[in-house]
Parts: sequence; C-alpha cells; structure tokens
Amino acid sequence: MNEIRIFVPATIANISCGFDVLGLCLDSVGDEMIIKKTIKKGITISKVIGQELPLDPNKNVAGVAANALLKNLTVDFGFDIVIIKNIKPGSGIGSSAASSAGAVFGINEILGKPFSLKELIPFAMEGEKLASGSAHADNVAPAILGGFTLIRSYEPLEVIKIHTPKELYATIIHPQIEIKTIDSRSVVKKEVPLQTAVKQLGNLGGLISGLYTEDYNLIGNSLHDEIAEPYRSILIPEFENIKKECIKNGALGSGISGSGPSIFALCRGKENAEKVSRGMKQVYNKTAIAFDIHVSKINERGIKILETK
Amino acid sequence: MNEIRIFVPATIANISCGFDVLGLCLDSVGDEMIIKKTIKKGITISKVIGQELPLDPNKNVAGVAANALLKNLTVDFGFDIVIIKNIKPGSGIGSSAASSAGAVFGINEILGKPFSLKELIPFAMEGEKLASGSAHADNVAPAILGGFTLIRSYEPLEVIKIHTPKELYATIIHPQIEIKTIDSRSVVKKEVPLQTAVKQLGNLGGLISGLYTEDYNLIGNSLHDEIAEPYRSILIPEFENIKKECIKNGALGSGISGSGPSIFALCRGKENAEKVSRGMKQVYNKTAIAFDIHVSKINERGIKILETK
Repeated sequence: MNEIRIFVPATIANISCGFDVLGLCLDSVGDEMIIKKTIKKGITISKVIGQELPLDPNKNVAGVAANALLKNLTVDFGFDIVIIKNIKPGSGIGSSAASSAGAVFGINEILGKPFSLKELIPFAMEGEKLASGSAHADNVAPAILGGFTLIRSYEPLEVIKIHTPKELYATIIHPQIEIKTIDSRSVVKKEVPLQTAVKQLGNLGGLISGLYTEDYNLIGNSLHDEIAEPYRSILIPEFENIKKECIKNGALGSGISGSGPSIFALCRGKENAEKVSRGMKQVYNKTAIAFDIHVSKINERGIKILETK
Repeated sequence: MNEIRIFVPATIANISCGFDVLGLCLDSVGDEMIIKKTIKKGITISKVIGQELPLDPNKNVAGVAANALLKNLTVDFGFDIVIIKNIKPGSGIGSSAASSAGAVFGINEILGKPFSLKELIPFAMEGEKLASGSAHADNVAPAILGGFTLIRSYEPLEVIKIHTPKELYATIIHPQIEIKTIDSRSVVKKEVPLQTAVKQLGNLGGLISGLYTEDYNLIGNSLHDEIAEPYRSILIPEFENIKKECIKNGALGSGISGSGPSIFALCRGKENAEKVSRGMKQVYNKTAIAFDIHVSKINERGIKILETK
C-alpha cells in the first residue's frame, strides 16, 4: 500500500460525568485525510483544505503525531499528508484529535500495522500536546478505537473500550464562538468538595453500568457533571436553555462537549435525536450566533478506510 | 408465614475506588436472625446472642429499621426479632447494616413481600443512621440485593446491581482494634484535588467495566483509592504490609473495607484467596493484635432464607 484515504471522526470528550476520562466517537461528522508514501524521508503536509492551518509538520498536530510514531521505527521513506478539514478547530468535538489520530492511523496502515490501535494512542496524544499543552487522550482514544472509551489511567496509560448500546445517538450543536481550551480549563476549580466527587463517582458508575446493560434510563439519569459544567457553562450562551429544550424533547441527557462551546445530547434512536436537533435549532435561531448542528449515531469502528492504493 | 430464619451477610463498602458508592456482599460471613409474628403490636427484640447490644428497639439498628418499614404499613400485629450476631460491631464489614437489612427483609417476607428488595433499602438505611449518624446505603444495598451494588444517587435514591464475575473471591482480615466510624470519616479531607478526583473516576470506571467484562486484570488495575485510603490507612496497623503481602501472593488488589479496620483483598479463585489469607495471617501473627480472617465467594443472592414456619 502506497496511499490511503480515511474518514477521521469527531469525538465528544467528558460526556458530563466522565470529566477527563470518558469519550465517544461520532459517525457523521469528521475530516478526510489522504496519506501517501514519499521517497523523501520525514513528514510533509502538502495541503489543508477547509481551514487555515500550518503546513509546517512541527506546527501542525498531524505532523507532530506522525513524527512521534516515526521516531519509534526505522523507515527509509517518508509520508505526505493532505487534510480535508470539516471539523472546525475550537469547536469542542475533537478537531485536533482527529488530525492527530488520522495521521498515525494512516501511516500505521501503510506500514502494515506495526502498532496495534491502542499503541497508536500515545503518538496521537503528542499532537494533542501541541494543540492544548497537555497530552490528553480523551478525544484521540475514541477517534482511534471507536465507541465509548475510558482512560482508566495515564501512568501507565490504560484505555478501555466500553460497550455501546445499539440505539444510542448524539445530537451536537456548535455555536460559532471561540472559547480557548486554556480558558475553559482555568475556570474549573482545582479542588473538588468531597461530596461533589462522590456524586460524580456515582454518576460515572451509573453511566458505565447503563452502557453495558443498555439501560437508557440509567444512562440518562447519570448524565450530570458536578465538576466542570457549573463553571464552564457560563462561557456558553444559551447553555441552560439548550439543555432544558433537549430534555423537553426527550433527550436522555445533555452537557458540554469536551471543553465547549459545543453542547451535546444523547438520545435513544435517530428520530428522537432529530427532534432534539430541531429544539436546539429553535433556541439558537433566537440569537445572532451562527451555529452548526450534527446528528450522529455512535461510531463503533472509529477511523474508517475509504480507499487504498 | 409466622416465622422466618435468615442468613444475613457481611458486606464490604467502598472497594477502594468506589468511595461511598460501591459495596459487595460476602457469602461465608454473616449473622442469623429469627423473626416471628407476635400478637403484640410493634417491634420487640427478645435476644441478641454473641454480642452485647441493646434490646430496646429504639436503640438497636434492627428495631429502628423494622419500625421505619412498619410506619409505611397498617398491620394489627407485631414482630419479635432474635439476632445471632457473628459479625463483630466496628469491624468494617457491615455489622449494623446486616442487622438493619435482616430485620426489614424478614418482616417483608412474613408480610408476603409488600415491598421489592430495592424498596427495602431506605428502611434499612434508617438503622445505619442510628449506627453512624448518616443514612448511608453502601452496606445495606449489597446485603439486601447481593453481588456488587452502586449507589448512583441518594437524591433520589438509585441503587444499581452490577454484574459479578464468576471466579471472584474476597479475603478479609479483621484486626481487633477499635476505629470509630466518626474518626475514620473525620480524617478524610473535605476537599479533593481535581487530579485526584479524575484518577478516582478513571479507576471506578475501570472497576465497573472490569466487573461487567469479567476482566480480572482490569479489576486489579482499578483497585486504588486516592480519596480515603491515604488517610485512613494510618489508623490501621500493618496496613501497607498486608497490602504488599496480598499483591505478592497474587491478589488482584487490596484496600480498606468500609471505614476499617478490616482490610480486604479481591482474588481470582478460591485457591488464591486462601493463599492470600495465609499471607495476611503471617503479617498479623508478628503483632500482638488479635484478628479474624474470612475467605468468601461474592454472594450474588444477598440475604438467604434458612427456614420458614
């Protein structure tokens, strides 16, 4: 194989109660990437379509992640990357994670899979480090593995794929305002009251249990975030109204996607997810803020190969 | 039915990462209780065998729990309770929970089950309130439901039963020292650093995932408590040595049972649990402290009916 074209999905990190540990993979929102073997050694990024992002591989997350992988192998050729960017940077649905994950996945495929999917995660995390200053895995893990993922631990890194209930859909609204990840992180308190931590533990346990047993009520009951949402939601216009509207329209629950500004809802079935998307639209139509809305099945496969040459 | 004799199991609360939310039910350690219908209305406790505990139903957790149940029904007779106490009070394996749970379970059976098992939990919690000042459910829930239980939320109360892997055993050592629950709670910090909370979330998610998928390695990797153990363990002689010895002998993990002083280990298979118990014994034999050791399968059924008349 000399060339691969892949679909690299957007992802939702945190999922309310899973602050910094949970993530899920979307299906209908994502970038495309074309990766080609080159005679020239090292990584080049020849084109980014759809967004203005640096072509310098040391300044582009895809290049940084790709180089992190190549450091662990001896190859006497290189790779060129083309990124067709559909996920807007700063949207809170894993834009940088998609580029990082796609780069390492594509190169690994071309090389005949020297690394397992889980082994690719630390390389992709290097891209995240460039993007946000911390090598977090809660977006790259679901992008690479698909479905729901849990970061059990960072030291050592242990990522677990969690069962995905068959009828689960996500609806996401991306209000086109800019919240820097660094700002969104700084509003979260560095100390958590013990009783708040216990509530979050109960809800996280409930959500994971609900996912394994496909108990949609339990999933809905568990979608509460006591740690970040009370502070981060202040940065997102209409957050409380969107959340109320989602619940009114039958969503299982709703919260901030990653560090925002996107807001997600989990829904049972496509029909309900679409109803919820209409409710979201109504709320934001009353504002002057531009927005995108996505309705997506949970993507259990992660990155998908579209074409190989 | 006029009389019931039941086995009421001991329980382990917290289970390391599940601080205040998780519990499990033991099989080979527990009390017996005999509950009889009486012509006289209300609750009497005619005998407690094995421990010196108050017979006044307002001062005995079994009486308080039983009265909490009866408040919700109109019956023109009463109940007498006999408790054969094998679980030592203050051991940290749910002694008061067993009495509370047994009383409401037995009465509910005699009355023809007006309440579901889950509905009995709030009544049993009233007994816990008498014993420790807070109406916690992390011991009464596994005693009544069996297996592993999660308190998803207290308001409203939602308790979930979690899948029990077939080969899972617990080994428990009870050093006969007294630690008051109130002291054990007061050493735990009221604020948790955010990064500590995140680690605990990761481990709790890992443990629950490991239970559903019967992944013993993941269960073992997840058995860490960042919130209470670092402070509570100081109150328990030889805690670190016991823990090291458990791991050396192949236990999946080890931690404080409830608020201590008992220390538990989870093990894969009976043989390993017995090996771990021999290791625990060796450590405590070097001290002057008396101790009990129990090896138990996880009890998936909870309270067991031994005889009815």
